[in-house]
Amino acid sequence: MIVDCHGHYTTAPKSLEGFRKRQIEGLKDPSLSPAKDSLRISDDALRESLEGAQLKLQRARGTDLTIFSPRAGGMGHHIGNAATSALWSGICNELIHRICTLYPKNFVGVCQLPQSPGVRPDNCIPELERCVKEYGFIGCNLNPDPSGGYWTDPPLTDKWWYPLYEKMVELDVPAMVHVSASCNPNFHFTGAHYINADTTAFMQFLTSDLFKDFPTLKFIIPHGGGAVPYHWGRYRGLAQDMGRLPLKELLLNNVFFDTCVYHRPGIELLLKVVPADNILFASEMVGAVRGIDPETGHHYDDTKRYIDAIDWVSAADKEKIFQGNVRRVYGRYAAAMAARG
Amino acid sequence: MIVDCHGHYTTAPKSLEGFRKRQIEGLKDPSLSPAKDSLRISDDALRESLEGAQLKLQRARGTDLTIFSPRAGGMGHHIGNAATSALWSGICNELIHRICTLYPKNFVGVCQLPQSPGVRPDNCIPELERCVKEYGFIGCNLNPDPSGGYWTDPPLTDKWWYPLYEKMVELDVPAMVHVSASCNPNFHFTGAHYINADTTAFMQFLTSDLFKDFPTLKFIIPHGGGAVPYHWGRYRGLAQDMGRLPLKELLLNNVFFDTCVYHRPGIELLLKVVPADNILFASEMVGAVRGIDPETGHHYDDTKRYIDAIDWVSAADKEKIFQGNVRRVYGRYAAAMAARG
Repeated sequence: MIVDCHGHYTTAPKSLEGFRKRQIEGLKDPSLSPAKDSLRISDDALRESLEGAQLKLQRARGTDLTIFSPRAGGMGHHIGNAATSALWSGICNELIHRICTLYPKNFVGVCQLPQSPGVRPDNCIPELERCVKEYGFIGCNLNPDPSGGYWTDPPLTDKWWYPLYEKMVELDVPAMVHVSASCNPNFHFTGAHYINADTTAFMQFLTSDLFKDFPTLKFIIPHGGGAVPYHWGRYRGLAQDMGRLPLKELLLNNVFFDTCVYHRPGIELLLKVVPADNILFASEMVGAVRGIDPETGHHYDDTKRYIDAIDWVSAADKEKIFQGNVRRVYGRYAAAMAARG
Repeated sequence: MIVDCHGHYTTAPKSLEGFRKRQIEGLKDPSLSPAKDSLRISDDALRESLEGAQLKLQRARGTDLTIFSPRAGGMGHHIGNAATSALWSGICNELIHRICTLYPKNFVGVCQLPQSPGVRPDNCIPELERCVKEYGFIGCNLNPDPSGGYWTDPPLTDKWWYPLYEKMVELDVPAMVHVSASCNPNFHFTGAHYINADTTAFMQFLTSDLFKDFPTLKFIIPHGGGAVPYHWGRYRGLAQDMGRLPLKELLLNNVFFDTCVYHRPGIELLLKVVPADNILFASEMVGAVRGIDPETGHHYDDTKRYIDAIDWVSAADKEKIFQGNVRRVYGRYAAAMAARG
């Protein structure tokens, strides 16, 4: 069993994008706002959007199950207000639920939250609860910068976020720290904003006592942890200079990295410096990079291939990375699987 | 001959900090503004500030010359206005010049620029010209985010910056892309803001035609290039998906990385994926991380040791990294050395 903990629904039918476009137009001219039920996507259209993409790639690459969430770049929390985000998140999460129902062996859901810049994250609790309790989702994506590149909300370690964390702990669901599109021209979204957010979140955690307050709260930092494993010595040294505990004790009960690193030397570094207990297999397909690497003849994002090729990681550690850790990090995973039979 | 291309004057006498404090107080109450000549630092005080720090570490580690600039975290371009930055930059650069005059075999200068958020970088040209022509400096530090963490100025690839680039090309000096302190609580300065800026700048270059407009313009991206080498496959793939040239042709005549990566696996990755022609030795001592790594018994930032220990990089490539590339990237380096005799 190989579980990919990081997949987004990046291949939705065009009508979803059309609805979103009308929703955005409606912000200026409310008469253009689409009714929620004006969006109709058939089960066949959902199947068609997946069969030639995520499902085909799962089969081709030998992965079994994807922890699946709405397109991250499409969350667009900076657009409109909390009501805009509530409607849009509800729609996107519902599509993920339908997909998980159509393909229970292939997908398990993680939700988008209806965040909005300057709005207390308490407003996300009902949607999180709904997705977990009604849809059987096992986690959420948490955007550390709902402003889309201006970073105007408090750090993830601020009490601002605590009510949401309390609910996450109660529901036993982790969050993947994941920004959305950037509306700041300085930041290319998949090339800079995503990676920067990963690095930023880790350093916020490093300098705080968040996990003293929430010993069971768990975060997955995607894209291989941003810059963190490459600068592991820097982070060990910074923690030490600040008189904090070693990273392992300080953070590694609560913080996990995925394997969305698109070349073998990067994956090797990750596996060398981060304990296997803290690494979760992921590819983010179909995602940021879609091409074939001329140096290998394979897709850049076929990350399983890099891990398979490494012979100095034990079978037991690979087992943890491919599925064992998922059971530990996503508290509701086992029950969700049992429910699927 | 071993040249460290990245050192800041982080050990200045306390009176410098005191002057800056009064300068900042003067922004609210001009009667408190210090006169420029109220700051008096003797040659002996300069010597004392260096002998037990940078000079001692140069000797201990077997490095010869440091390309030396004012403390990056102290540039504080977000504080006050252009006049504030002009006075402060002038003072900081003058200290570097005095240090290079006292220790011509140990230091060669790079200047801080009097940037200010929202102010056209044209205002930096006189100070750059002064430092290069009068002080014999060989480069500058360019802050891609003078706002200190809110990223409100245009990307480095915007025509906003072109007058400064024209002057850099004319003077034949490169810029190290280096932010300063962060006033955004989301970003720890050395743990997030620095690394994010490195990653951001690289992606800006990747998506632009800046180097078609300035074929001889050169940038050093410090801190091992931020997240870039770790995600080299991602960046190769993003360029490819966008139909751009391969990274080598697209960027590597103009963009260089330093070796400020504070553990051996990180340095190994850098040397594996980035051509030796594009790597410049650096340690940033005395800098972001000052402790001793308990895993090695040596300073985290003793980066020479990591490179020395790698046996699969040829002597010719190490020679390039330790000094050869400096001659190529810093067009005025050879003349500056010749002037020292």
